[in-house]
Amino acid sequence: MNQPSSSQPAPDQSGANQSGYGKPPEAVFDWLDEKAEQRRAAGLVRRLRPRPADAAQLDLASNDYLGLARDKRVAGATAAAALRWGAGSTGSRLVTGTTELHGDLERELAAFCGTEAALVFSSGFLANLAAVTALSGQGSAIVTDKYIHASLIDGCRLSRADVAAMPHGDHAAIAHALATRRTERALVVSDTVFSVDGDLAPLPELATACRQHGAGLLLDDAHGFGVLGAGGRGAVAEAKLIADPDVVTTFTLSKSLGAQGGAVLGPRRVIRQLIETARSFIFDTGLAPGSVAAALAALQVLRDEPDLAARAVDNAATLCTALSTAGFTVSTPAAAVVSVRAPSPEAAVAWADGCRAAGVVVGCFRPPSVPDGVSRLRLTARADLTEADLAKVVEVITEQAPPGAS
Amino acid sequence: MNQPSSSQPAPDQSGANQSGYGKPPEAVFDWLDEKAEQRRAAGLVRRLRPRPADAAQLDLASNDYLGLARDKRVAGATAAAALRWGAGSTGSRLVTGTTELHGDLERELAAFCGTEAALVFSSGFLANLAAVTALSGQGSAIVTDKYIHASLIDGCRLSRADVAAMPHGDHAAIAHALATRRTERALVVSDTVFSVDGDLAPLPELATACRQHGAGLLLDDAHGFGVLGAGGRGAVAEAKLIADPDVVTTFTLSKSLGAQGGAVLGPRRVIRQLIETARSFIFDTGLAPGSVAAALAALQVLRDEPDLAARAVDNAATLCTALSTAGFTVSTPAAAVVSVRAPSPEAAVAWADGCRAAGVVVGCFRPPSVPDGVSRLRLTARADLTEADLAKVVEVITEQAPPGAS
Ligand SMILES: Cc1ncc(COP(=O)(O)O)c(C=O)c1O
Ligand SMILES: Cc1ncc(COP(=O)(O)O)c(C=O)c1O
Repeated sequence: MNQPSSSQPAPDQSGANQSGYGKPPEAVFDWLDEKAEQRRAAGLVRRLRPRPADAAQLDLASNDYLGLARDKRVAGATAAAALRWGAGSTGSRLVTGTTELHGDLERELAAFCGTEAALVFSSGFLANLAAVTALSGQGSAIVTDKYIHASLIDGCRLSRADVAAMPHGDHAAIAHALATRRTERALVVSDTVFSVDGDLAPLPELATACRQHGAGLLLDDAHGFGVLGAGGRGAVAEAKLIADPDVVTTFTLSKSLGAQGGAVLGPRRVIRQLIETARSFIFDTGLAPGSVAAALAALQVLRDEPDLAARAVDNAATLCTALSTAGFTVSTPAAAVVSVRAPSPEAAVAWADGCRAAGVVVGCFRPPSVPDGVSRLRLTARADLTEADLAKVVEVITEQAPPGAS
Repeated sequence: MNQPSSSQPAPDQSGANQSGYGKPPEAVFDWLDEKAEQRRAAGLVRRLRPRPADAAQLDLASNDYLGLARDKRVAGATAAAALRWGAGSTGSRLVTGTTELHGDLERELAAFCGTEAALVFSSGFLANLAAVTALSGQGSAIVTDKYIHASLIDGCRLSRADVAAMPHGDHAAIAHALATRRTERALVVSDTVFSVDGDLAPLPELATACRQHGAGLLLDDAHGFGVLGAGGRGAVAEAKLIADPDVVTTFTLSKSLGAQGGAVLGPRRVIRQLIETARSFIFDTGLAPGSVAAALAALQVLRDEPDLAARAVDNAATLCTALSTAGFTVSTPAAAVVSVRAPSPEAAVAWADGCRAAGVVVGCFRPPSVPDGVSRLRLTARADLTEADLAKVVEVITEQAPPGAS
C-alpha cells in the first residue's frame, strides 16, 4: 500500500493488523494486563466459580438470609409468573414494563412496611442510584457515613450535589456537617446494617440530626429488611422511622426475599419524583415478572411465618459467640452478618478455600470490597441453619484457620 | 417540655411534628411538589400504567423485537430454571451469584457473536456503567456521540475521565477529538442503533478513527443485537468489528432476547478487568437464574430460526413507508425502531392515548427522554407482527393523529 508522502512523519498504516498510531490494535488494551499484574502481585485476583444446582456444601456466603431463594413457594411463583406474563417485562416501566404484578408488589411492600408508597427497580443497585440522585441534585448537600454501599456512593457521584463522607458511625460528625452546610437542601445517606461487618448505623441519632437540621434521611435497609424489626419489617421499621415524612428507605429483593430487584419506600411525593425523574428507573427495563412474583411470594412467607427473621438473628448470635470463644476477632452482629478478621488478603483467600474444601462456603472480602482495608471472612447466618450446621461451621472455620487468625 | 435557656436563639423543638429547624418534618420534601408542578405545567407528567397479562391491544411499544418474551420455549426455560436453581442467584457474582447457568450463557453469547469472552450483568444499564468505567478512568479520555443511552452517559459521569460529547452522527468530530486529546488512553463510546430514532451510528468510520488514534471502541448494541447482522448477531457483527481486539460490545438481554439482564462481549482481558474492578458487577447480586435461562433459550431460538431478525427489519421498513406515504415525518429505520414526530409533548401524549384506546399501544417519547427535545411516537416493529397488524397500526395512527402531525 502506498502512503502519500508528507513532511510530517506519517503514521504507519501498512498492515491490516497495524493501527494508524503505529501499534497493533490490541495495544489499546495492553494497560489492562498491567493492571491485572498489579492486582495479582497484591493478592487481589478474583475469579468466578460457577456453582452447580445441587452443591453439597453448607452455604454461609449467600445473602439468602431466610433461605427463601429455593423455597418452593417462592421459586414456584417465579415459574408460574413467567408462564403467565412472559420471561421479561419487555420495556421501561414507563412504557410496557409495568405489569399488574409490579403494581401488586409495590402495594404489598408499602402495606407490609407501612409507607405511603413503594417503587420497584430491576436491582437494589439501580434503586439506590435513583433514590440518591432524585432526592439531591446541584445546589444540595449529601452527608454520608463513609462505609455506605458502592451503589449509594455511585449515586452520590452522579448527584452533582456537595458530598461529604463522615467517619463510620459518627453521627455527631454528620450533624455537624449538616449544621455547617452552605446549601438549603440536604440529604443524609446511610446503610442501616453495614454489609461487610453487619453493624447497625445509629438510626435514632441520624434521624434526630436530620430533624434538627432540616435534612431528608435516606436509609438502605438491604441487610436489615427481612431480618430485623417485627416480622422482618426491617431496621427502619424497628427504629420507628419508616413512616416518617422525611425518611426514605431502599432495599433489595435479592437478599431476604430470595429474588432479584430493588425497591424504594417512602412518601408518595418521593415515589412520584423517582418515577418522573430517576434515570435508572426511566431508562431501564422493568424487573422480570418472575422476579416480581418471587418477591411477592416471599413477602407472603414473611407474613405467614413472622418468626423467621428472628431465627436468622439468633443464628448469627450463636455463631458470633462460638467463634469469639474460639479466639477469633468477630464482629458483633446486629442482624445476620458475622465477619471474622483475617491476617491478610492471601490468608483470607486460603482460609475460605480451605473451608470450601471442607464443605462450608463462606464469603471472603478483600480490598476494595472492604472499606477499612481489612480482609475477612463474611458469614451469613441463614434462618434455616440447624444447630448441627452451626457446629460444623465453627469446627471447619477453626480447623482451617491460618496462622495469625486467632 | 422545658428547654435549657441559652443566649443563642434556640431552635423550636416544642412539638412532636415540629423539626428543630422550625418547620414540620414533611417540609424537607416540599421542593418535590414544586418540581412536580413544574413538570405538570410543561406537559411532562408521567404515570405508570400497569398492564394485564392478557392485554387485548396490539403492542408496538415494547422492545420485545422478536416476540420472544412470551414464547413458550423462553418462558418455559425461566420456569424450569427457577424450580431447579431457585428464584434468585443469592449473592454477588463473585460470591455465590454465579451458577453454572451463568457460565453457560457467557460461553454461548461469546460463541454466537464470535468474541473471546462475555460477562453477564443483572441489567444492560449496569453492564454499561461497568464497561465505561472499567475501560477508562482518571487520566484517560472518553469521546462520545451526544445521543448515547443514559446508562452510558452515567458511566461517563462515574468514570473520572475527560469526557467530550460530539454532535450526533459526527464521526469526524470524534476523530478530531481523539487527535487533539491530551491523554494517552482514549475510549470512543456510542450506541449502534440509537434507541429513540432507530438510526445507525457510522460504525466503520468510528472504528477507523479509533484505529487511527489508538482508542478503544465501546459499542452498545442493545437495539441491534437480535435484529441486525447474520441471524441477528447484531450491528457490531454486521460491521465485522465484533472480534476486533480493540472493540467491546454491550447489550441487554431484555430486548430481542425477551429476558432481563445485560452483557459485555469482548477480549478476555477486558472481561477480566470487569470481573476484578467493575463496581456494578462486584457490588450487585447476580442475574436471577430464570432470566439467565430465558436468555439461553432465546439464543437457541435465534440459532434455530435465523430469519427471525430480518422479519423485524422488514416490518419496520413496511411501517416507515406506509407512515411516510400517509404524510408523517418518520425516521428511516436501520433496525426495528420507527419514530414519528409529534408537534408537542402534549400532542404526543394525546396521540398515544388515542392509539391505545383504538387498540394499538405505541411508545410516547418526550423530554428528557429525547435528546433533541422533539417529542414523538416510537414504534417497534416486532418480528411477529402480521400484514394485517401492520395495516391496522397505520390506520389507527393516521386516524388518531393530532393537528400538525402531518
Ligand atoms: C447494602 C446494599 N445495598 C444495595 C445492594 C445492591 O442490591 P442488588 O444486588 O439488588 O443490586 C447490596 C448488595 O448487592 C447491598 O449489600
Ligand atoms: C441503548 C440501550 N442501552 C442500554 C439499555 C439498558 O438496558 P436494561 O434495560 O437491560 O438495563 C437500554 C434500554 O433499556 C437501551 O435502550
